[in-house]
Amino acid sequence: MLRWLLLSAAFICLICPSKAALERYEPNWASLDERPLPSWYDEAKIGIFIHWGVYSVPSFGSEWFWEDWLNLRYPNYLSFMKNNYKPSFAYQEFAHEFTAELFNATKWALLFRDSGAKYVVLTSKHHDGYTLWPSTSSFSWNSMDVGPKRDIIRELSTAIRQESSLKFGLYYSLFEWFNRLYINDKLHLFLQQNYVERKMRPEQMELINEYLPEILWSDGDWEAPAKYWKAEEFIAWLYNDSPVRDTIVTNDRWGFGTACHHGDFYNCQDRYNPGILQPHKWENAFTLDKSSWGQRFDVELNDFMTSEELIGEVVKTVSCNGNALINVGPTKYGTILPIFEERLRDMGKWLSVNGEAIYGSKPWIYQNDSVTPNVWYTQKLDPTNSSAIIYAIVLEYPYDTNEIDLYPIGNLSKDTKSNVILFGYEDEITTDVSVADMSVSLVGMESAQLDWSLNGNRLHIVLPPKNHIDKNGLKFAWTFKITKKGFK
Amino acid sequence: MLRWLLLSAAFICLICPSKAALERYEPNWASLDERPLPSWYDEAKIGIFIHWGVYSVPSFGSEWFWEDWLNLRYPNYLSFMKNNYKPSFAYQEFAHEFTAELFNATKWALLFRDSGAKYVVLTSKHHDGYTLWPSTSSFSWNSMDVGPKRDIIRELSTAIRQESSLKFGLYYSLFEWFNRLYINDKLHLFLQQNYVERKMRPEQMELINEYLPEILWSDGDWEAPAKYWKAEEFIAWLYNDSPVRDTIVTNDRWGFGTACHHGDFYNCQDRYNPGILQPHKWENAFTLDKSSWGQRFDVELNDFMTSEELIGEVVKTVSCNGNALINVGPTKYGTILPIFEERLRDMGKWLSVNGEAIYGSKPWIYQNDSVTPNVWYTQKLDPTNSSAIIYAIVLEYPYDTNEIDLYPIGNLSKDTKSNVILFGYEDEITTDVSVADMSVSLVGMESAQLDWSLNGNRLHIVLPPKNHIDKNGLKFAWTFKITKKGFK
Amino acid sequence: MLRWLLLSAAFICLICPSKAALERYEPNWASLDERPLPSWYDEAKIGIFIHWGVYSVPSFGSEWFWEDWLNLRYPNYLSFMKNNYKPSFAYQEFAHEFTAELFNATKWALLFRDSGAKYVVLTSKHHDGYTLWPSTSSFSWNSMDVGPKRDIIRELSTAIRQESSLKFGLYYSLFEWFNRLYINDKLHLFLQQNYVERKMRPEQMELINEYLPEILWSDGDWEAPAKYWKAEEFIAWLYNDSPVRDTIVTNDRWGFGTACHHGDFYNCQDRYNPGILQPHKWENAFTLDKSSWGQRFDVELNDFMTSEELIGEVVKTVSCNGNALINVGPTKYGTILPIFEERLRDMGKWLSVNGEAIYGSKPWIYQNDSVTPNVWYTQKLDPTNSSAIIYAIVLEYPYDTNEIDLYPIGNLSKDTKSNVILFGYEDEITTDVSVADMSVSLVGMESAQLDWSLNGNRLHIVLPPKNHIDKNGLKFAWTFKITKKGFK
Amino acid sequence: MLRWLLLSAAFICLICPSKAALERYEPNWASLDERPLPSWYDEAKIGIFIHWGVYSVPSFGSEWFWEDWLNLRYPNYLSFMKNNYKPSFAYQEFAHEFTAELFNATKWALLFRDSGAKYVVLTSKHHDGYTLWPSTSSFSWNSMDVGPKRDIIRELSTAIRQESSLKFGLYYSLFEWFNRLYINDKLHLFLQQNYVERKMRPEQMELINEYLPEILWSDGDWEAPAKYWKAEEFIAWLYNDSPVRDTIVTNDRWGFGTACHHGDFYNCQDRYNPGILQPHKWENAFTLDKSSWGQRFDVELNDFMTSEELIGEVVKTVSCNGNALINVGPTKYGTILPIFEERLRDMGKWLSVNGEAIYGSKPWIYQNDSVTPNVWYTQKLDPTNSSAIIYAIVLEYPYDTNEIDLYPIGNLSKDTKSNVILFGYEDEITTDVSVADMSVSLVGMESAQLDWSLNGNRLHIVLPPKNHIDKNGLKFAWTFKITKKGFK
Repeated sequence: MLRWLLLSAAFICLICPSKAALERYEPNWASLDERPLPSWYDEAKIGIFIHWGVYSVPSFGSEWFWEDWLNLRYPNYLSFMKNNYKPSFAYQEFAHEFTAELFNATKWALLFRDSGAKYVVLTSKHHDGYTLWPSTSSFSWNSMDVGPKRDIIRELSTAIRQESSLKFGLYYSLFEWFNRLYINDKLHLFLQQNYVERKMRPEQMELINEYLPEILWSDGDWEAPAKYWKAEEFIAWLYNDSPVRDTIVTNDRWGFGTACHHGDFYNCQDRYNPGILQPHKWENAFTLDKSSWGQRFDVELNDFMTSEELIGEVVKTVSCNGNALINVGPTKYGTILPIFEERLRDMGKWLSVNGEAIYGSKPWIYQNDSVTPNVWYTQKLDPTNSSAIIYAIVLEYPYDTNEIDLYPIGNLSKDTKSNVILFGYEDEITTDVSVADMSVSLVGMESAQLDWSLNGNRLHIVLPPKNHIDKNGLKFAWTFKITKKGFK
Repeated sequence: MLRWLLLSAAFICLICPSKAALERYEPNWASLDERPLPSWYDEAKIGIFIHWGVYSVPSFGSEWFWEDWLNLRYPNYLSFMKNNYKPSFAYQEFAHEFTAELFNATKWALLFRDSGAKYVVLTSKHHDGYTLWPSTSSFSWNSMDVGPKRDIIRELSTAIRQESSLKFGLYYSLFEWFNRLYINDKLHLFLQQNYVERKMRPEQMELINEYLPEILWSDGDWEAPAKYWKAEEFIAWLYNDSPVRDTIVTNDRWGFGTACHHGDFYNCQDRYNPGILQPHKWENAFTLDKSSWGQRFDVELNDFMTSEELIGEVVKTVSCNGNALINVGPTKYGTILPIFEERLRDMGKWLSVNGEAIYGSKPWIYQNDSVTPNVWYTQKLDPTNSSAIIYAIVLEYPYDTNEIDLYPIGNLSKDTKSNVILFGYEDEITTDVSVADMSVSLVGMESAQLDWSLNGNRLHIVLPPKNHIDKNGLKFAWTFKITKKGFK
Repeated sequence: MLRWLLLSAAFICLICPSKAALERYEPNWASLDERPLPSWYDEAKIGIFIHWGVYSVPSFGSEWFWEDWLNLRYPNYLSFMKNNYKPSFAYQEFAHEFTAELFNATKWALLFRDSGAKYVVLTSKHHDGYTLWPSTSSFSWNSMDVGPKRDIIRELSTAIRQESSLKFGLYYSLFEWFNRLYINDKLHLFLQQNYVERKMRPEQMELINEYLPEILWSDGDWEAPAKYWKAEEFIAWLYNDSPVRDTIVTNDRWGFGTACHHGDFYNCQDRYNPGILQPHKWENAFTLDKSSWGQRFDVELNDFMTSEELIGEVVKTVSCNGNALINVGPTKYGTILPIFEERLRDMGKWLSVNGEAIYGSKPWIYQNDSVTPNVWYTQKLDPTNSSAIIYAIVLEYPYDTNEIDLYPIGNLSKDTKSNVILFGYEDEITTDVSVADMSVSLVGMESAQLDWSLNGNRLHIVLPPKNHIDKNGLKFAWTFKITKKGFK
Repeated sequence: MLRWLLLSAAFICLICPSKAALERYEPNWASLDERPLPSWYDEAKIGIFIHWGVYSVPSFGSEWFWEDWLNLRYPNYLSFMKNNYKPSFAYQEFAHEFTAELFNATKWALLFRDSGAKYVVLTSKHHDGYTLWPSTSSFSWNSMDVGPKRDIIRELSTAIRQESSLKFGLYYSLFEWFNRLYINDKLHLFLQQNYVERKMRPEQMELINEYLPEILWSDGDWEAPAKYWKAEEFIAWLYNDSPVRDTIVTNDRWGFGTACHHGDFYNCQDRYNPGILQPHKWENAFTLDKSSWGQRFDVELNDFMTSEELIGEVVKTVSCNGNALINVGPTKYGTILPIFEERLRDMGKWLSVNGEAIYGSKPWIYQNDSVTPNVWYTQKLDPTNSSAIIYAIVLEYPYDTNEIDLYPIGNLSKDTKSNVILFGYEDEITTDVSVADMSVSLVGMESAQLDWSLNGNRLHIVLPPKNHIDKNGLKFAWTFKITKKGFK
């Protein structure tokens, strides 16, 4: 019991209203870290990440193609190029095959909307330096000059905003593998900042001012300290003076040492999924194609997450205070492979039923337990009827028994005090809650009366016959909604 | 009852051993139609059709790209070309992007094997005339001269034969849209046969002699009579003298008027699936991408059959005496999109359990019934224990009740005579069969004791709890095996 | 003197009217060789040879690029390809860069006309098999299907015939390096003729029937006997029944052993120029780019004949009873490099003054002499004033003395009898000719009175002051016209 | 006479030794204009200009291809692109065909040396922004990143310096048609200088520091004032502190209004050739292909200057105090068309005989006269034998008479005083000169005794017989050398 108390204290800021914003932020981490997270981001929970660029043309290996080929000289890349291209072939030539002739931003927007995601993050520029907008500072190496001859960011942001209520974000790589300005700065031990001043900073400003993104997803930061990138100065501008200062959210990749330490939310490393509750808002950026962010034609079925795995990943992430940023790699033609679409639509169908357990939810004190390990929890306050709700999301069906025991819920029956703490709404509880105020239902089959009982230390639930569950189209994961009334 | 008798007589050849082959076939349909179907083909039931060629490069619309663009001048093709290619762009230029650099015949062979298919049919030449082997008669317009620089037929046939026991077949288009030899013959009302003599016949002979296919899948026949194509003469050679005379199977597309009338098996039209029993062996050639045989990059998820639809199509086809030829369109890179792979592997998993109801099965007198319309039947004689087996394959699960009524089976209980007829083994039945000789099991859960009864005019079965069925991984379709002993 | 008599007898057919054509020619050389040469050809003297095709795209080495690269594997070709193209690059891909976008047949026709040539020979198909017309038998490997998307032969023949009085001829390579039909025939020791029957003969017929060429310039004959190529049979058809039977002229490359032995005119080997009079009409086919027939971008100035060399080559050839076929290699764009144009226009300017010594001329008994070795002779009968004319063409100006001695002419003064023989018009001479009937002038400066004398055994001529000659624009070679009256 | 005196005073600096260099130059024109011209430049007289870049790929129209096509939208460019390229074709794609695979810098260096030129100027960057070196500020749009994958400037400068004594210069375009940094500055009325600071200036510095050119040939200046380009500041650095401060020569294109007013030498406009003596050193930059600086495949013979025209242009230019900068446009392959080579080698042959009248010469008071208009004059002091030399270069041969009258020279005989003034060496003349000190010879035939006389007001010369002149290979232009002894 004592443990719970301590834990809950640590999480207090998660469930309180944000403090008022500071007057102005100073360009140092101490001040910047004071900024409250704009609320939309935590509520959104699920985003779509899009890696699209010139690497979608060779569509081989991964979006690190250029580096892996020419700097790291991996044998499989060298032999792919040797076998299929002339010796003098330049990576830049791929850009001319990046035609995007089938790219229809509205189609993408509708698919992302149907997937249940609430925001989209597009690679405005990856490490190859190619920009998906007509960057003033990237002559002849952007999507307006070569390749699609279109402003991809403009088209997608417009479609997203017209067709949906999704937020629009931009990924931007700080460094560039082959930019001589950057390479020269590096050769000078980052004591000069020609690249930052003449290339990177102007582009960052242009992106913010032109496209008003709600997320700036920084990357490629690891080689140099944040001081080289002048990150603090830039973020202060973002928070204080930029046109998106009220809504912008940014991540933690701003120089080596910043990841997991500074930023509105933490990405830490790629595919970060700690499996336990994190005190600071974080995001799990992961890929449906488990080996690559960019499109690969040498991909096979078993490279892909199944729909069950995808939904499981989302559930675990949200349960632990994370957002899920799910990556798709479109083709050079501008299409999204059906296998991606299938995964996204499966998720969308699941969320159309189970979304209430995800969107706007908060982590509960328990995330899961070791006796029934494939059940994960979220919680929510229902202000319309003074209820607190716990969602128990079952990732593995109890095929043998058709019954399930939820131990964390069971504990609630014992102790009013703990209830209060567990739900975390201490101040708002005006009357005692008791077991009698509790109801349990299967989300998607609310009309079915469940056979459940608080049985010693656990909530025991008998599920409806599986053929009836199937008839209702419930699959991938099953959500129990445990409601406790008595909050006002 | 009378009706059954008449029907069974008509089908007698399906279930009898083949008659001895004629001494030699004459080059006329009357004689050629006498040839018994080599037994392997009917037993195989499921094949994979591969449409791969230069049209896989534009990967737009369908494999009829060239025709639809330049002869039919469909606006969407014209605008696709106008927007993306120089005005003088020749279809032939696509061939140089038909690189197939990721083509690995062994990978394909293993996938097809795992799909449960028993044969493969590859487009050796489609209507564009491009050949997937170094045709002596197609200089500079074949896969050895331009594009992959490889003998695709050699590679695939070798891999198929090394890695699996699948049979290997070749599709060959008789006509070519843009071949001036053919066009000139046509302008001369097919009274001259320059194309046939100088191009088509030499290629057909070369294909047979070089690659020894077990199937020759003819197409593109519709514009001219079989006499123009000299089809009878060629088939007579195939049956009498070719190196594959014992195993070769050919279809019915040999000139207008031949489809559905002559040939070892009938394809009739594309995606032919009559839904009722056919007296002559037939094949349902259909596509997983419902709109195209060749790969299209403008494809979306809802263009694809689901795994349920695929398995349902196979079951209905086999039930009605057909084989299923399931088409996939590989990419120009030589890969098979994951969505195809997913469908094929789902089918393979289903067949690994339920294959006994498919391979080597025979049509039963009933194919399905109107009361429980989503159940389809096959039958088989089990010589090891003198049993006759009926398979009832349930395509739609009885979600409401978890019980099912099979009327056709029920009828068996009434009448020994009809039993004999129904099973079709008239001559071999030496003792009466009775209901007591019958057993019923769910394929894949044979150890589970089923609760079943012959209830008036139907076999009533209570299925195991759905959660147990799920635990056994049974999905897509569920097969009941009804065994009647007493044959010797 | 005796020698001259014998020689003149051998040449009798050159200067007599042709005999009447035989009724019909038999398909054997003995009969075919009886055919008189259509008179236009001997009168024309100068033709333009055009080597244009897919090899104009790599434009490297020579028009034998494909063979030198892939069959002979010359290191410089291998390294050119290795350095500049992907490993799987097919020669056929070059065809798509054979765009000919600047090809203007009228411009070419006007240039050839201005060059003074009287016929043009275009490579309808070279050894690579690519045809410059939409050959019915070369699907996808012709200029209508791939590359220019134009019927080059049609365009050029039409322009030539509309814009000029030049004759139009076609080069056609019998064999093809990489045609599997041919290769297979060769592997069968030419005992089968699939290639001849299915590819070559139909194309030859089509060329003749469609484009009605005045020359069929056969090549690529050397690997097989004329019997394999069925040459005699074909030439008999050309002479007897083809639509061009009255005007067609063909060369001597019809199978090994035929060169220099059979045909309307003899090419013998490339750049054949024996330097002495030949009894049978011949043709010197040579290239302005001394190393290649096709266009090469790796060409330098010293690879080219100078205008002096070109005109000298023409003069020597015509003097010895040859025609000059001067080769140009256009670029893949359809242009003719200025250096070619300069040479041709220089020749045209020279011929516009000196053409009377070339066109319609006959060889004289003397071609040149050893005392003044750079003077070459032709002759002509001027029927308008009963004169015989000898042209002495001076290829090297007598810079030191400004005077010249022509020994062969000097001999004429000694002997009336020899005059008769020398001029060869025995039957037509009715009165004695004497020295007094002779006049001498410099072609292009006829009004200038020359100081000349028959001085012992030579004609001694004092040239006008060189500054006056220059003023008249006479350069490259200087023609003296020696007229003897007294023929009627 | 008075007129001559005034004129001679104006030209005094041409023929005096340079003053000592100023201590340091200030960044303003008044100071910069004080700098004496490094002597090598005036002595060199003849340079080769090379326009080579991405525009050499379309090789259509001119090096202004991009502008004429997309900004000016000239119909012939639009239709060229529409007919031959896909609609989305980017100019940048041409870069990948700029292969330069046959580029051999040594070959070029030897050709330029043999042409008689004394310096070379290469387009380091034209208005399209593509750089022929790996510019740190032009990522992916330079010859190392895309196209040749080579540092063209490095290769050519090295070869020039190794194989010859020619000086090496670089052309650099200040502005870029399509650079968004520049366009934005322009939209801001040049009140901001982002382009200058972030792109142009760093590149100029890099060029000077890396390649140490002897000429910086600025261009593309006309849209903005020199203040925008910060030209004065840069030139001051060049003169004061750059590593090439002692040898560098620069032209006058540094902002609108500077042309013909500031700079080491004046180019004024393209093909500037005033035909009269200019007080300030100037340069006539002109093209052998009269219509284009870049290579064009749609070029014809009559687009080219003849060798006579070329040599005439050089002579007139040098006579009037100019240098001749003769432009050649290499092909995308890296070759120089034979027609260019022919012109250059003709000039080289002429200069190998007549070079003494050109290199190191000074303008004379007379450049030409109206009675014999095609004779142009230069002069030189021969210190070895105290002679002054006047060269009279005859551009049109006196074909009619073989005699010539040079009036300007004739005047010299009348008046010792005028002699002194004319030759301009006033201070150095210690004794009177008289006609008797004069000799006249034909350069290249010095051993031939000329028949000449001072005849009233003219020098009358009888030329040697033209056949003898020809024998000595003298052509294109003929130089008389008039030597007056008596200077010490």
